[in-house]
Amino acid sequence: MPMKTDRVLEPRCSIARSLQVLGERWTLLIIRDAHAGLTRFADFRDSLGIASDLLTNRLNTLVEAGVMERRPYQEPGARGRYSYHLSPAGEELMTVLASLQQWGDANRPHEAGPSVLRRSRSSGRPLRVAFVDDTGTPVPPEDVDFVFVDH
Amino acid sequence: MPMKTDRVLEPRCSIARSLQVLGERWTLLIIRDAHAGLTRFADFRDSLGIASDLLTNRLNTLVEAGVMERRPYQEPGARGRYSYHLSPAGEELMTVLASLQQWGDANRPHEAGPSVLRRSRSSGRPLRVAFVDDTGTPVPPEDVDFVFVDH
Repeated sequence: MPMKTDRVLEPRCSIARSLQVLGERWTLLIIRDAHAGLTRFADFRDSLGIASDLLTNRLNTLVEAGVMERRPYQEPGARGRYSYHLSPAGEELMTVLASLQQWGDANRPHEAGPSVLRRSRSSGRPLRVAFVDDTGTPVPPEDVDFVFVDH
Repeated sequence: MPMKTDRVLEPRCSIARSLQVLGERWTLLIIRDAHAGLTRFADFRDSLGIASDLLTNRLNTLVEAGVMERRPYQEPGARGRYSYHLSPAGEELMTVLASLQQWGDANRPHEAGPSVLRRSRSSGRPLRVAFVDDTGTPVPPEDVDFVFVDH
């Protein structure tokens, strides 16, 4: 976690390494919208109210980092364009988004209630993000330890 | 998730609401360092290599948002200062940090391996962040559904 060496170019901490790609509000909102099914530049722009040049920049960063994939498409009578899709690494960000959502539900609630609920497809039961050990047993927060690895 | 109304001032989406406070690289790294035990301004500054005015700004935002608490302290012969501590809402961000860490471990690996491991204090078993239903049963990613609430 806190680190004194190589912190700018090649931090070893995985939180810092993740935030090199994701640590910006628009980036995580673009990924949120991609999880919700958006693929087209104009749809991301309209959903987010973000300037086109900033969106282009953020999408390029995500494509270069392997979080999103760019695919060409062409509609009849229109010029060729690109659509943007989550890579497997991008799909894995569902847990990050859900943990932010859960924290916001509890700590930044909107008077109208949450806009999205997390449910099991198969059982319909409500879901939360939690710590689980390698036998599949949930572990409460007070039992979670972060062990620093010696270099 | 994607939303067309009130998106700037009062988004209803809890991801967007969380990122109003957290959506910036330094902010989540400050919270990471606070979870690792740092409390003093100079220690955050040295750990992060961040400019003092930027750190002051970010700490103020976190205090105003109720994520961190400012406490006065004074050492013999020195002037009074403030230390910074996680509030209960800040403690709850452990799940967000761990999900970012886990994603970075898998998708942005360092050649020296991860700098931190997640373990159960009581059993020593490795931990991951996962979806769990209200009976405490882990649910795989493909069974997770996000249900949009009608306004």
